[in-house]
Amino acid sequence: MSTEPGGGPARWERRGSRLIASTRVIDVCGVTFHHPVRGTEREFICMQAPDWVNVVAITRDRQVVLVRQFRYGSNDFSLEVPGGVMEPGEDPVATGVRELAEETGYGGGRASLLGSLHPNPAIQSNRCHAVLVEDVEPLHALDWDADEELELSVAPLDEVLRLVTQGGITHSLTLCALLLYLQRRGAGI
Amino acid sequence: MSTEPGGGPARWERRGSRLIASTRVIDVCGVTFHHPVRGTEREFICMQAPDWVNVVAITRDRQVVLVRQFRYGSNDFSLEVPGGVMEPGEDPVATGVRELAEETGYGGGRASLLGSLHPNPAIQSNRCHAVLVEDVEPLHALDWDADEELELSVAPLDEVLRLVTQGGITHSLTLCALLLYLQRRGAGI
Repeated sequence: MSTEPGGGPARWERRGSRLIASTRVIDVCGVTFHHPVRGTEREFICMQAPDWVNVVAITRDRQVVLVRQFRYGSNDFSLEVPGGVMEPGEDPVATGVRELAEETGYGGGRASLLGSLHPNPAIQSNRCHAVLVEDVEPLHALDWDADEELELSVAPLDEVLRLVTQGGITHSLTLCALLLYLQRRGAGI
Repeated sequence: MSTEPGGGPARWERRGSRLIASTRVIDVCGVTFHHPVRGTEREFICMQAPDWVNVVAITRDRQVVLVRQFRYGSNDFSLEVPGGVMEPGEDPVATGVRELAEETGYGGGRASLLGSLHPNPAIQSNRCHAVLVEDVEPLHALDWDADEELELSVAPLDEVLRLVTQGGITHSLTLCALLLYLQRRGAGI
């Protein structure tokens, strides 16, 4: 990688934090940073949440497990890979396996960490981990009500990527998990 | 794509919104939704922000333009593709070309939309657009101070993808833009 000459950006020093709003899913804070060269202090907005996990689950016949659900932020349906919030003390792979089972009934196979991302390092402190679970199968039937909130499907990877290109899958963290899976496959790991 | 039988998830109806906190970068709202089958009402947290744009800029010698900067959310440096916030009335491609020039001094070439994502449809209403600008070149020198806040570099795509795999690039929206670029290339468009 070729880089322009120069000293590069400074590392601001985190000095303190005040809670602006606390919600069920995220805390909004004002965090004070000090610039080591200019000596200035400024407050920046930071959203604090637990880490999240997304799961690329591949069935024994090489299909990707997908869930479709109504999302309140976008006020629309969203087709995604399964995922959820890490519990305190849980590791990302355990969260991935647990959320996959809870949301889809799929399990078994081999689970591993694909990588860890920042959903938005500009304004969020948390990370999102992408977990791969290969050779999964339906382990238990889902007992959905008439007004079920989640729709399960499977699709070959090529079709999933076509949906990404066509705007049928738009959740950024699902796309990240798919990119990391493609890189893992390409590297022959 | 094969789907489980069943009626699928219901479309909740958005009924109203209250402002919980307003910040420079995002508004936090409580949005009331009504379930059409169960008849229940619940309030969900929604972050409202302008749309964002990220830019995959490819130089004439086929390298990707990258910026490195300190990010307050993660309290760390982050290596990313250039990007920024859409101005009112601006279209994503215009934002991409403007932000690329402002952040890096690169310009020229051909600009097009790669795709549009939801950074997080669960809790955010806004979208992030990925823009491709091919055959860019440095159009003007950057007049950075001694305490410059942004470091510019270029790297071949293979090296950028290796950095993704190794955890050297972790911003989810940068990864999404790279995935959409890979798909565009793969499709021979």
